[in-house]
Amino acid sequence: ILLCRRAIEPRRGFWTAPAGFMENGETLQQAAARECHEEALARVEIEDPCAIVHVLHAHQVHVLFRAVLADGGYGVGVESLEVGLYEERDIPWPEIAFPSIEFTLRRYFDDRARGRRDLHFTTFERSPSRA
Amino acid sequence: ILLCRRAIEPRRGFWTAPAGFMENGETLQQAAARECHEEALARVEIEDPCAIVHVLHAHQVHVLFRAVLADGGYGVGVESLEVGLYEERDIPWPEIAFPSIEFTLRRYFDDRARGRRDLHFTTFERSPSRA
Repeated sequence: ILLCRRAIEPRRGFWTAPAGFMENGETLQQAAARECHEEALARVEIEDPCAIVHVLHAHQVHVLFRAVLADGGYGVGVESLEVGLYEERDIPWPEIAFPSIEFTLRRYFDDRARGRRDLHFTTFERSPSRA
Repeated sequence: ILLCRRAIEPRRGFWTAPAGFMENGETLQQAAARECHEEALARVEIEDPCAIVHVLHAHQVHVLFRAVLADGGYGVGVESLEVGLYEERDIPWPEIAFPSIEFTLRRYFDDRARGRRDLHFTTFERSPSRA
């Protein structure tokens, strides 16, 4: 799993999968690929969606896709302090920046263990506590 | 298929499946169910998503769900001129209001014929021509 330690607020110093706000004029998949490049200097092939997360208090809908590194390359983008590939057992769960990312990673691993590729929905209704 | 003939612009007089903009504080599924009630006085059980449509020129992402009527009831909401249940062969294709609705209905019927329930993506890049 390609994870980035955030160089910017909110949640500076915490870990996330590449993600961010869409720009006008791009698709969800283009936005996801762009964020992978901006945050982790990675070219990716976007696959199917893994999770759709409603963050009601923030008026946001997060759509998280499965993806693979196109050529194996990655690096530390300007919005990241550190970028690396992590096995499931090495995911820094207490230091994951956002509930939607933790939810998606857990569903991804559950699916993978079962040989499934489902689309998972969840809803968060209030601000997460800050560490 | 529950279709509504639109009483409001854009595309007044054309047909659509119930759909509309999300409100802050609701999930995609809640928004979909609310629109079914507003436009067609229908209580529905929202199921899995059938299509995600990027409408790039409008800066919109449309998420269309399969759903079933909860109790069979429906009626003409204030935003509709007419509401009815249509068999596939009776869908008024040239009078469907929006490309994202036509795309979704066609994928839905294709899936149904094949016994599938897939999630379909597409992108529209410019304004549709107006009839």
